[in-house]
Amino acid sequence: MAQAYAASPLVELRSCYTRNPERRQAFAADFGCGQDESLDALLARDDVDGIVITAPNDQHAPIIEAAAAHGKHVYTEKPVAVALADLRRIRAAVLGSGIVFACGHSARRLAGLRAMKSLLDSGAAGAPSMVEAVFGNERGLELKEGDWRADPVQAPGGPLTQLGIHQIDNLQYLLGPARRAVAMGQAPRPGIANQLAVGVLLEFDESLGYLGCNWLSPGSFTIDVYARLARLRYELDFSWWSNSAQTDRHTRLTRTVIAADSANPDARVLATEEVPLPPRDHLREEIEEFAGAIRGTARVEVGLAEALANVAVLQAAARSLRTGAPTAIGDIMAEIEEPR
Amino acid sequence: MAQAYAASPLVELRSCYTRNPERRQAFAADFGCGQDESLDALLARDDVDGIVITAPNDQHAPIIEAAAAHGKHVYTEKPVAVALADLRRIRAAVLGSGIVFACGHSARRLAGLRAMKSLLDSGAAGAPSMVEAVFGNERGLELKEGDWRADPVQAPGGPLTQLGIHQIDNLQYLLGPARRAVAMGQAPRPGIANQLAVGVLLEFDESLGYLGCNWLSPGSFTIDVYARLARLRYELDFSWWSNSAQTDRHTRLTRTVIAADSANPDARVLATEEVPLPPRDHLREEIEEFAGAIRGTARVEVGLAEALANVAVLQAAARSLRTGAPTAIGDIMAEIEEPR
Repeated sequence: MAQAYAASPLVELRSCYTRNPERRQAFAADFGCGQDESLDALLARDDVDGIVITAPNDQHAPIIEAAAAHGKHVYTEKPVAVALADLRRIRAAVLGSGIVFACGHSARRLAGLRAMKSLLDSGAAGAPSMVEAVFGNERGLELKEGDWRADPVQAPGGPLTQLGIHQIDNLQYLLGPARRAVAMGQAPRPGIANQLAVGVLLEFDESLGYLGCNWLSPGSFTIDVYARLARLRYELDFSWWSNSAQTDRHTRLTRTVIAADSANPDARVLATEEVPLPPRDHLREEIEEFAGAIRGTARVEVGLAEALANVAVLQAAARSLRTGAPTAIGDIMAEIEEPR
Repeated sequence: MAQAYAASPLVELRSCYTRNPERRQAFAADFGCGQDESLDALLARDDVDGIVITAPNDQHAPIIEAAAAHGKHVYTEKPVAVALADLRRIRAAVLGSGIVFACGHSARRLAGLRAMKSLLDSGAAGAPSMVEAVFGNERGLELKEGDWRADPVQAPGGPLTQLGIHQIDNLQYLLGPARRAVAMGQAPRPGIANQLAVGVLLEFDESLGYLGCNWLSPGSFTIDVYARLARLRYELDFSWWSNSAQTDRHTRLTRTVIAADSANPDARVLATEEVPLPPRDHLREEIEEFAGAIRGTARVEVGLAEALANVAVLQAAARSLRTGAPTAIGDIMAEIEEPR
């Protein structure tokens, strides 16, 4: 993320803070910025407009509360938080505070996602009936007992929380709000209580979504859209996931249509063509939008409402993993918005 | 199917029967075989060893009962039947009858399925944690009110019964018996009560399955396997689905592995390579195996047990579509095996 920011003329890394002084020093040296010895000191600075939170999920709430109290704008990594209590705190801190609030669901800014959204919104692909989104990698094979990612409370569904949350945003970006979730998981590693492979079915108003997440296989990031006039397939080479200036160059979007129609269904012929994807930089675009929103020249695309709606889907899936039954996402949203 | 059989020296189309005399005559002329004016007349012939049933699903049970009573061997198209009452009748008719019984789940004989199974069984791909199987086409867009395929009882889940049953066999072929199913569906066409898009999650002993079926988008047939050492992707060009001698030439299996490992997960590099698929002919292999089993020189791979186990998964998914809750597949099997 810092690499992507360093390339932008619109933002400047002014300072940094983390509890470990060596890591703080190393970051300041790597990116040529200052450093502060406490969060309070950082938030008290006059030359800082906003902060970027990359702390673990369960530390987001107190940092956001402190930032809002200081009138500092906030960009936070996804998920905005996991625990319902944290989501309530964050919502209370941000609403009415007047700060700009952005959450890092940057994957919807990948060139392929923008192209899919445009093909759906323009009607060129026809109405979608199903979208399948998959995100996985091999990192569960190295997971140790005691790691927070091995804990179903801190990271419900393991890869669902860490990877799936990206695709939850993508699915709601493409299809609108999800209504209901049902999930199944497998926890195949002795000593690791958390699920390392999870499947989720999502009901949307007029379509279905599937989300597949695993931590047990070489990296994958794909989205398949089944629409009336075309089916679309997006593939991203996970080797390039962390380098946002290069990611789009290692992605591919294809469109499959009926190229030769016939009254005899067996005689219809399919054709697949590549959709051009002019490269973008999802992390840079996101921080520049955040800067623009602070200056009053842009609007945040993924703000508090979108961030909470994504975690509501995650928590609905997590509840379904525990109970086995489908969960209404509105029930989770009600728990976030009206604490009992 | 008849085209595939005509190419084989091991089987001979001796006669045919269907109620409509014009269609019977046309088939006999097209394939140079005789014809009979009733099913009984066909089953009474001394020069017929076995029959191939291509009648609609709800007519399988009485035909199989009649064939078994005449000691004729039976090959039937998939699904073996849909209604639980029909499955009980078929089971009772076949068990102890001594006839050879085969069900046309031929998709597992596609070169790519055989290659995936071999990569899993040999351990070369490592243990699989998830398999996603998708089968869809556009035929629900032409469905008329009153068509049996529009009826959730005759064709539960629409494309799930007609297309998904193939992938149910493939999933159980690759992963063993499924234990539990949960499903969601959408019925987006006014006047058509049946679901035209369906997603199913399946729980296996040590892995998960996803089955996606739709009748609302250009044809698709794909299988993705997420295993510890590799991920495998199989794609079949649906334009070639009905021509079994050519199908394999229009399929592709890729294997993605971590080609350059690193202690830093972000530095790992993936590589994808094509797995060679020497072409086969799934329909011809199947009928030749049936002929061999009649002669005592082969064993039927997909017999009564496999056919019933596949419909049990289908009916579990259908029950879940109605109730919203997960369904144990063992409960359905118990209803098939021990009628109340």
